[in-house]
Amino acid sequence: PESTHKQIQMGALRLPALTSIFTSSSSVRSSPAIFPLKRCLRLPLRRPFSAQSTTEKVVAPELGDGKGKVVDKDKDRVITPRSQDFNAWYLDVIANAELADYGPVRGTMVIRPYGYAIWEAIQEYMNVKFKETGHSNMYFPQFIPYSFIEKEASHVEGFSPELALVTVGGGKELEEKLVVRPTSETIVNHMFTQWIHSYRDLPLMINQWANVTRWEMRTKPFIRTLEFLWQEGHTAHATAEEAEEEAMQMIDVYTKFAYEQAAIPVIAGRKSRVETFAGASTTYTIEAMMGDRKALQAGTSHNLGQNFSRAFGTQFTDENGQRQHVWQTSWAISTRFVGGIIMTHGDDAGLLLPPRLAPVQVIIVPIWKKDNEKAGVLTASSSVKETLQAAGIKVKIDDSDQRTPGWKFNYYEMKGVPLRIEIGPRDVSSGTLVISRRDVPGKQGKVFGISMEPSALVAYIKDKLNEVQSSLLERATTFRDSNIVDVSSYDELKEAIAQGKWARGPWSAGDEEESKVKEETGATIRCFPFEQPEGPKKCLMTGNSADEVAIFAKSY
Amino acid sequence: PESTHKQIQMGALRLPALTSIFTSSSSVRSSPAIFPLKRCLRLPLRRPFSAQSTTEKVVAPELGDGKGKVVDKDKDRVITPRSQDFNAWYLDVIANAELADYGPVRGTMVIRPYGYAIWEAIQEYMNVKFKETGHSNMYFPQFIPYSFIEKEASHVEGFSPELALVTVGGGKELEEKLVVRPTSETIVNHMFTQWIHSYRDLPLMINQWANVTRWEMRTKPFIRTLEFLWQEGHTAHATAEEAEEEAMQMIDVYTKFAYEQAAIPVIAGRKSRVETFAGASTTYTIEAMMGDRKALQAGTSHNLGQNFSRAFGTQFTDENGQRQHVWQTSWAISTRFVGGIIMTHGDDAGLLLPPRLAPVQVIIVPIWKKDNEKAGVLTASSSVKETLQAAGIKVKIDDSDQRTPGWKFNYYEMKGVPLRIEIGPRDVSSGTLVISRRDVPGKQGKVFGISMEPSALVAYIKDKLNEVQSSLLERATTFRDSNIVDVSSYDELKEAIAQGKWARGPWSAGDEEESKVKEETGATIRCFPFEQPEGPKKCLMTGNSADEVAIFAKSY
Repeated sequence: PESTHKQIQMGALRLPALTSIFTSSSSVRSSPAIFPLKRCLRLPLRRPFSAQSTTEKVVAPELGDGKGKVVDKDKDRVITPRSQDFNAWYLDVIANAELADYGPVRGTMVIRPYGYAIWEAIQEYMNVKFKETGHSNMYFPQFIPYSFIEKEASHVEGFSPELALVTVGGGKELEEKLVVRPTSETIVNHMFTQWIHSYRDLPLMINQWANVTRWEMRTKPFIRTLEFLWQEGHTAHATAEEAEEEAMQMIDVYTKFAYEQAAIPVIAGRKSRVETFAGASTTYTIEAMMGDRKALQAGTSHNLGQNFSRAFGTQFTDENGQRQHVWQTSWAISTRFVGGIIMTHGDDAGLLLPPRLAPVQVIIVPIWKKDNEKAGVLTASSSVKETLQAAGIKVKIDDSDQRTPGWKFNYYEMKGVPLRIEIGPRDVSSGTLVISRRDVPGKQGKVFGISMEPSALVAYIKDKLNEVQSSLLERATTFRDSNIVDVSSYDELKEAIAQGKWARGPWSAGDEEESKVKEETGATIRCFPFEQPEGPKKCLMTGNSADEVAIFAKSY
Repeated sequence: PESTHKQIQMGALRLPALTSIFTSSSSVRSSPAIFPLKRCLRLPLRRPFSAQSTTEKVVAPELGDGKGKVVDKDKDRVITPRSQDFNAWYLDVIANAELADYGPVRGTMVIRPYGYAIWEAIQEYMNVKFKETGHSNMYFPQFIPYSFIEKEASHVEGFSPELALVTVGGGKELEEKLVVRPTSETIVNHMFTQWIHSYRDLPLMINQWANVTRWEMRTKPFIRTLEFLWQEGHTAHATAEEAEEEAMQMIDVYTKFAYEQAAIPVIAGRKSRVETFAGASTTYTIEAMMGDRKALQAGTSHNLGQNFSRAFGTQFTDENGQRQHVWQTSWAISTRFVGGIIMTHGDDAGLLLPPRLAPVQVIIVPIWKKDNEKAGVLTASSSVKETLQAAGIKVKIDDSDQRTPGWKFNYYEMKGVPLRIEIGPRDVSSGTLVISRRDVPGKQGKVFGISMEPSALVAYIKDKLNEVQSSLLERATTFRDSNIVDVSSYDELKEAIAQGKWARGPWSAGDEEESKVKEETGATIRCFPFEQPEGPKKCLMTGNSADEVAIFAKSY
């Protein structure tokens, strides 16, 4: 894993920017000069931004949508190497790949089209899964009477420091201030009391896609923002067992999504009591290891027990005519997941997207030197594009003549497009093309002479996309496993955390000891993983017998 | 059209509720008795709610999702006849068809799964059209600094009475109060200034699906709520011509949607100066005639000119190196459209959905008398369901044995499902089924002996769905046209409005005369329709020559 990691960095270092060839805006139109090249690496590299460009920095093209828009030369930016400053790298990638921008209000984020398209891919997958598992979409108002939030004791304790309050409406001071939803359990229960009468109305299983607001003090694009987008599922059941089954089912849906779509090998498990959602009986979580080895809570599913139904009086008449409180769950993933994808797969060259969530899976870069080559290359490129599109592959062609092929190579690598197709005049004559994998830099990831014959090409591209998908998961899994240390004592735990790793060890100590670990190491219990080692265990802190291992890590 | 209308009402009157056969909850499980019947109309009708049931009211089944849930017998509700009280009818339909419910905060609405599914169908269609016309989805924060709203003079004037303000965040009074977006032109321009540098960054064409908040005093579900869902498109262009073209393109997209998907024959046109959006140079609108003949503004597209770009300094460098303000548009449709669909097509029996937007296009009701018939009927029903589903038809089967077929007929008619399939034991033996159209009540809309053979059946059902779709549009168009009166004087206008109709007449008078019409008649200029009669015209108010006719109507 270390060598893989080094390889990626080295690969990235081999990819300095092939910068804009234009010296001013006006020259663009008057002399659309092209520096044509067949292979990126054969091009003599130019580094016009001597002040910024060092061998440690990759100059990334900035702005424009790749559709031939040219940036002002003094606007090019650089991506800080990931190993040098992970946080700076993360922010650079978000800015350069045009995933998001800061909003005018502190802590808010504008999700730009390319970032939003990743969220849409997540939504598309999830929506199908939610419906398959029996849930219906609906929409609850975002304004919640303040009194609602106060009804469930631990809920108000957890959320009241983070609330945004509407106090004026239509020019008048409101009698009761309104909470801008931080989550919807309270208003959901208020409505459930009106819809649930008997056991025949159960289970009630709904979901909503919505924005939520939490007044976070330390914000970071996608990861923690004042307003974010999410889905929140809410269900009510007649029995405790059904609620538990549902909570487990949904964490499984999230886990499967993480592995199969996002190529993120999350660890699924149960939260400690301290880390449980404000108002839940049990919280299940998926925890992902980011490239800096910090943990990211990427999705949660809560068994709410009867906490909210007792607070709101959400009751049903059971088969024996007895009134009972419903058993509930709620579960959510958010735009935070987009941040998780960036921080799991990205490298020094920029973003790296798993094919199944990539807004563009294949970018076609036509390459020509002479004017008389252009038509043939473009015709072949369009025809390849149509072939792939018809096969359901998300493909784009960048045929602008305002950028060099080399610039385009870098640009789409920085954008994380999984596969690149290059088509030059010689390819056209031979009826072949060149394919490059984003995840394997340089020659190693390049295959020449792939046939353009439609059925063969489609099969080949689909295979390659699957290969990239698997390879990303494999790489992330290797990285994860090599950074989890099994510990049997607090000293070992401290050492693992000090090394930036995750510590996994038996735990049966109390909340107080858990807080002590946090204070002394900065690490928290991420979860008690569902997958547990067999055999007798002794608590790493107390030496008492322990039923389970817990995973400790620093986290976002 | 009048006779059609009467016919619908009569049809509705023939469909009183076939009420629950259960006398108590507990009896349901112990004796799941069935009142089987082949044809709804042959069943002796029972009216257990003598207090409520009169020949003027249709008892509608309430609650439950049609999947075998049984309502408490004292919970059944009635739908007020449309002709008796249109508003009460509208609210009854929304409640009974479970489209929406009131939220806990005044003027807010909970959109329930069945109502939300209609919105999802609208989204699905629109999303494709927006992308086809070159727009990308993205997301802007909903909190806007108050100072932004003040920048465009007429914008602040239009929106400030309707704002919800966040004044407290994270437990602290905010230095600058935040507006919960009523619309996003201001924040969009704030961001556009950062993304637009030269003419090569134009056009910039985006859309967002979002919630918006307007502190309305008089609210009505779907039509006017404190918070609603919508899409808002925002574009920036290099020239006035391009902006105008875009604004027109998008009102055309809406018009086409209204006609082809919603079967609503809207009239597209230009708003008068008085009715123009706060901040726009020109507003284009689609105006729909509801069942009570009031107009509903169902979608708008604004040419914003340079109003916002001047207020926010949204500039670009043109091809000659000159700085210029961009030309902009914005356009929106909202959940209000769902209200428009209800009020256009619904009748005394309840909702009536155009097939292309119906969450369920075909409901299958299996019918059996004896236990030994059940298996065969259910097998045939399932197989029909699978056949239709595989053909992309939205089909559901209601095979619960807790409700009579008659009850189910009424229930799905009330829910507006365009087609019903009935399958009984005799149908199974003959390999046929019965189809009923929701829009043609009784025997007239019923066809017996349709073959179950898959390819024939799929073709038949698709034809029928298209027939219903066309027929709804035709009926609404006839209704609309018979309720628009051409007027040439103010007296004629007043009379038309007094009769509840729309008045169309030449208009070249000023804002003051327009206000006078509103004060004296309650009608406003809905639009200057794009389709104009030829020849010379004289203003109905002043007698001066007029270039255009305007349409006046009372509106929602």
